[in-house]
Amino acid sequence: MSLPKTMRATVLYGEGDMRLVDDYPVPEPCSEEVIIKVEACAICGTDPKILAHGWPNHPPYGEFVFGHEYAGTIAALGEGVTKFKIGDRVTVEPHKGCGTCDNCRDGLYTTCLNYGIHEKGHRHYGFTENGGYADYACIHINCVSKIPDSMSIDEATLMTTAGTSLYGIRRIGGIKTGETIVVSGPGPVGLLTVVLARLLGADTIVLIGTRAERLELGLQLGADIAINVREENVIERILELTDGFGADAVLECAGNIQAAVDTVEYTKKSGRIALVGNYKEPAPMNIGKIMLSNLTVVGSRGEGERSVARSLALLGRKTIDISPLITHTFPLDEIHRAFEIAEKRLEGAIKVVVKP
Amino acid sequence: MSLPKTMRATVLYGEGDMRLVDDYPVPEPCSEEVIIKVEACAICGTDPKILAHGWPNHPPYGEFVFGHEYAGTIAALGEGVTKFKIGDRVTVEPHKGCGTCDNCRDGLYTTCLNYGIHEKGHRHYGFTENGGYADYACIHINCVSKIPDSMSIDEATLMTTAGTSLYGIRRIGGIKTGETIVVSGPGPVGLLTVVLARLLGADTIVLIGTRAERLELGLQLGADIAINVREENVIERILELTDGFGADAVLECAGNIQAAVDTVEYTKKSGRIALVGNYKEPAPMNIGKIMLSNLTVVGSRGEGERSVARSLALLGRKTIDISPLITHTFPLDEIHRAFEIAEKRLEGAIKVVVKP
Amino acid sequence: MSLPKTMRATVLYGEGDMRLVDDYPVPEPCSEEVIIKVEACAICGTDPKILAHGWPNHPPYGEFVFGHEYAGTIAALGEGVTKFKIGDRVTVEPHKGCGTCDNCRDGLYTTCLNYGIHEKGHRHYGFTENGGYADYACIHINCVSKIPDSMSIDEATLMTTAGTSLYGIRRIGGIKTGETIVVSGPGPVGLLTVVLARLLGADTIVLIGTRAERLELGLQLGADIAINVREENVIERILELTDGFGADAVLECAGNIQAAVDTVEYTKKSGRIALVGNYKEPAPMNIGKIMLSNLTVVGSRGEGERSVARSLALLGRKTIDISPLITHTFPLDEIHRAFEIAEKRLEGAIKVVVKP
Amino acid sequence: MSLPKTMRATVLYGEGDMRLVDDYPVPEPCSEEVIIKVEACAICGTDPKILAHGWPNHPPYGEFVFGHEYAGTIAALGEGVTKFKIGDRVTVEPHKGCGTCDNCRDGLYTTCLNYGIHEKGHRHYGFTENGGYADYACIHINCVSKIPDSMSIDEATLMTTAGTSLYGIRRIGGIKTGETIVVSGPGPVGLLTVVLARLLGADTIVLIGTRAERLELGLQLGADIAINVREENVIERILELTDGFGADAVLECAGNIQAAVDTVEYTKKSGRIALVGNYKEPAPMNIGKIMLSNLTVVGSRGEGERSVARSLALLGRKTIDISPLITHTFPLDEIHRAFEIAEKRLEGAIKVVVKP
Repeated sequence: MSLPKTMRATVLYGEGDMRLVDDYPVPEPCSEEVIIKVEACAICGTDPKILAHGWPNHPPYGEFVFGHEYAGTIAALGEGVTKFKIGDRVTVEPHKGCGTCDNCRDGLYTTCLNYGIHEKGHRHYGFTENGGYADYACIHINCVSKIPDSMSIDEATLMTTAGTSLYGIRRIGGIKTGETIVVSGPGPVGLLTVVLARLLGADTIVLIGTRAERLELGLQLGADIAINVREENVIERILELTDGFGADAVLECAGNIQAAVDTVEYTKKSGRIALVGNYKEPAPMNIGKIMLSNLTVVGSRGEGERSVARSLALLGRKTIDISPLITHTFPLDEIHRAFEIAEKRLEGAIKVVVKP
Repeated sequence: MSLPKTMRATVLYGEGDMRLVDDYPVPEPCSEEVIIKVEACAICGTDPKILAHGWPNHPPYGEFVFGHEYAGTIAALGEGVTKFKIGDRVTVEPHKGCGTCDNCRDGLYTTCLNYGIHEKGHRHYGFTENGGYADYACIHINCVSKIPDSMSIDEATLMTTAGTSLYGIRRIGGIKTGETIVVSGPGPVGLLTVVLARLLGADTIVLIGTRAERLELGLQLGADIAINVREENVIERILELTDGFGADAVLECAGNIQAAVDTVEYTKKSGRIALVGNYKEPAPMNIGKIMLSNLTVVGSRGEGERSVARSLALLGRKTIDISPLITHTFPLDEIHRAFEIAEKRLEGAIKVVVKP
Repeated sequence: MSLPKTMRATVLYGEGDMRLVDDYPVPEPCSEEVIIKVEACAICGTDPKILAHGWPNHPPYGEFVFGHEYAGTIAALGEGVTKFKIGDRVTVEPHKGCGTCDNCRDGLYTTCLNYGIHEKGHRHYGFTENGGYADYACIHINCVSKIPDSMSIDEATLMTTAGTSLYGIRRIGGIKTGETIVVSGPGPVGLLTVVLARLLGADTIVLIGTRAERLELGLQLGADIAINVREENVIERILELTDGFGADAVLECAGNIQAAVDTVEYTKKSGRIALVGNYKEPAPMNIGKIMLSNLTVVGSRGEGERSVARSLALLGRKTIDISPLITHTFPLDEIHRAFEIAEKRLEGAIKVVVKP
Repeated sequence: MSLPKTMRATVLYGEGDMRLVDDYPVPEPCSEEVIIKVEACAICGTDPKILAHGWPNHPPYGEFVFGHEYAGTIAALGEGVTKFKIGDRVTVEPHKGCGTCDNCRDGLYTTCLNYGIHEKGHRHYGFTENGGYADYACIHINCVSKIPDSMSIDEATLMTTAGTSLYGIRRIGGIKTGETIVVSGPGPVGLLTVVLARLLGADTIVLIGTRAERLELGLQLGADIAINVREENVIERILELTDGFGADAVLECAGNIQAAVDTVEYTKKSGRIALVGNYKEPAPMNIGKIMLSNLTVVGSRGEGERSVARSLALLGRKTIDISPLITHTFPLDEIHRAFEIAEKRLEGAIKVVVKP
């Protein structure tokens, strides 16, 4: 199959300056890379920040194509690729480690010590390398997974998000059957955490948030109890639900400082807390209680431990329908409008997908 | 062997009111308990706080004998005790779980969910039960370990502290051979953490503190590098020592807020931080970095996972001489003076031992 | 509620000599114990062996009431019991550790080092202590769990079996989402392993066995593929299903020597194998391959890590209907007939339940 | 620095046919590779087997240079290498994973699923790629570690062996302080396991073997007790030493079938057994006891988890002198004699080193 020489691509030209061009060179795959014909790319919460401020070590303005939650079909194979064939339906994850640093050798590729150093083999697609708001995208096979037939291309764009949720779950040592799990923040990561916690054997799942519709959706997706922090005292309520002992584990996905601080107060002695959100300021954590209660607090970066591929298998079974998370789709031509909807969360937007 | 009916004991009569009495009833052992003839009891950093403010669920004032870092010889055996015999040289640890709650059944007895509830079988000797500033003390066999011949009774009083250090090390998943370990705070827990990290295969051990003599002692006990935070920028120095990547793991034993906050800045991506100190206020933790760096931050409560017994075996080999940690000994009669020395850290005091 | 003085009980009088008596003294609960009015007790595969040969440290013949998979309602409370109240619907697990040995303190109560020593506090109900083929049974609260309303008393008798399955899963480090899991042996433990693996996020579940109906039931309960070892070459088939790499993990529940030996040949490099069955002879294991493939082979004893309580929560959700596992129920009077059906697997028997 | 065009190399020409040639082309480094001027290469127990029978996927006879336990100095740098500079003293480990298979992404590079497939990036130097019995050797930087100044080049050739020992220790979950550890087989791997177990905090170390001098050396290197299986009943002796409970963990390094079988009989309930040796036949393992005792039996393949680099740091401290393990050194010209000494264990040979 021969690819065109040029394509449409959403290129960043500077802070806040995103332009859709139609003469961007179609990339060529190196060894162990593939070219994907992008069919859908979801807008991540980080994308508007990249648009506004760039990202450390990003490709030069004028060349930088971003977008990292995309899916499509294999359009070309680099040298040595045997795992895929032309036409395979696939989705991607953004992180590829350098393969030689201590963390990569330990399997911790989302915390590669050569982050952003292209020459060392590190790739963070859509951040420090080109990504998927374009007709075609080039990516290393470590970041590519086949989609089961049961899953649509649009749903497949949710898999990096699901991988982030799953890695959060794995960072707390997995969910042990029978545990009471709190998920804080009903955004895409939080809602998919609810879905996965349910599919992985949690007992009671408590979802915390501020918006009624989101909490309602969370109940539909598998949560047992929803707590609106504007209406109830979260700490009291969770202690009450757990005979005063607190939750076994908490996944904080809101990126909210107070939400993070609160977790310590309603987690059981020897319980676990994952910080999965983005936090912009220091949080006044009650570390005295972290010590006295023997708590484990983990940051969870990216979608490590092959969590995207793992999520695909599980969500491909369709036990829970995740399609309601995709509230909007736009053609690539309307990417500016798509960003506005996504960033301002207009019209009840959760996940907004752009389709080249 | 028949025990006397009464004994000397240091009894708390109220906040700040500690009295040495000589007619306290000698305790009688229940099933699975022993009576220890106390020969030495070290003053823990928590003891002056108990003296000043009591402790949740402490025995009634007028009856409460505190002190929990003691050693001596077995003087009487309760029903069913076969593990010890009269005359055995032993030391103790303070926590015994209820044995029936979820945490105890999981082996997490220092975070027993029935803390302070005597009827449920929980014991925290010297806190919620009587302890060792007395001629005799009664204690459950789970809290008692034999001392190797190579170890003196005075050194044996350090074993609860060593167990706290060791549990901190276990809470961060152990020290992996070849790692750079930072120990923050050269108090008794921190210094014993240095000793244990050395004996457990750490590569570079960096000790952080404020007092020159303590840092000096740390170097003698096994640290490779000492950083005086009053003289150097700790974060810069550690990053410099580690090619900019940060330490593999940190054990914060100072109980200092700024020290805890700093750890996040000099720990390697995917590294581990143990909070082993007592922290009185919230700490403004950089949780954004905890997330982005995929850090694991654990509180470490007490001397779990049989860490006192484990420490005894290792320190009994005498590869490193820990006796310099004991700077003062006093007869029980001078316990008030001993407390003054310990609390105000007079005369270079590190560990002060009281000898009934 | 006052209990009668005597009751019906199935007493072992010698090897092969089981008698239903109607004047057995109703037990009285000690501290932290309860009396359960037994409403159903399932026959475990071990029970006919106990009947035939006794068990190390069993209660004296003439007094020994066996049966350990029972459920019923709380009929009396020993001193200090606050977790239950009269009338609670409950089920049980057989192992209670001594609480003082090293393994118990580590949370490993199914491998208590004081096994069978009553004076040390160890209990193995139905084996070294009296059990549940009787109107009433006395048991320690550590071994008792409430049944969710959604679960019938008969289904609740399956929970010790489910706990055994779950502990096997936990012994292999849990099921990681997306893994291919092989379950060998479609007996009660194997079939419940299928159910739990499905509910815990396994990807492909392969069930191996010899009997068509059992394999069929396994497919109904959640297996994706059934292999009849009499018709197919198991090793070839599993390698074929896994691109030649082998399964991620295997749970051998058949107790069959050849089945155990085969596992090594179809498990992926760095994969895990749990031996959950009872094996009567040495197995010629290919340990050269265990080494070269870096395999982990674990024995799995009993229902550790609170797996019965954990299973209850998960199976109480009724996502998969486990009632087909109970093929027969008999009144207590017909216990001899029940044993015959169970032992000889007559009439397609899987689980046979006796109802006092 | 310019390298010569040709060099001396030990080339395999067929089964049993090893020839020292002096016109072998000096290799050129690719990206992320270095050329090492080999100064010493130890003979591994596997080398005589490779000589006799080849190895799956080995380089063609007539080109195949073997040897994988070598050390020397960096002589040339491939593109992109910044971690080393010319003249650095280094040692090597043989396994480099492909970096793209599931196991490699999980950090399990010694069980790469693309073993022996050069095109996929897998390397097993000295086995499926050229190695170190030559003046120069080419190797990927993942397999290279700097030697501390304190360590001689000859000692550095022991580091792959030490890495194998260390990985065995890590495969059993590390040594927990205070544990009784049995090491079976006082060959190089076993003796270095004794050294590392001592340096990592084991309590009692028991060494089992058949040859008195080796056992004697083991005691010198850190073992507490040596058992000669020709003179004592190993099972009885270890049970006696452990109050009848058995050892906490065992590392079987002898590659002996009976030794492997015996481990199950003297390991504590819930204990761990590592199979580190090479086993040529099936072993009649008592899997019934593995199940009942909840044992964990792990194969340990190679020197995973960066164990060579980790060992270097620890052994570089010289707390225990490992030089007695090197009993013979020969110039490269005498490699045939060196192999004879090593293979037949003449003159008390333990490790035999060849020096180009």
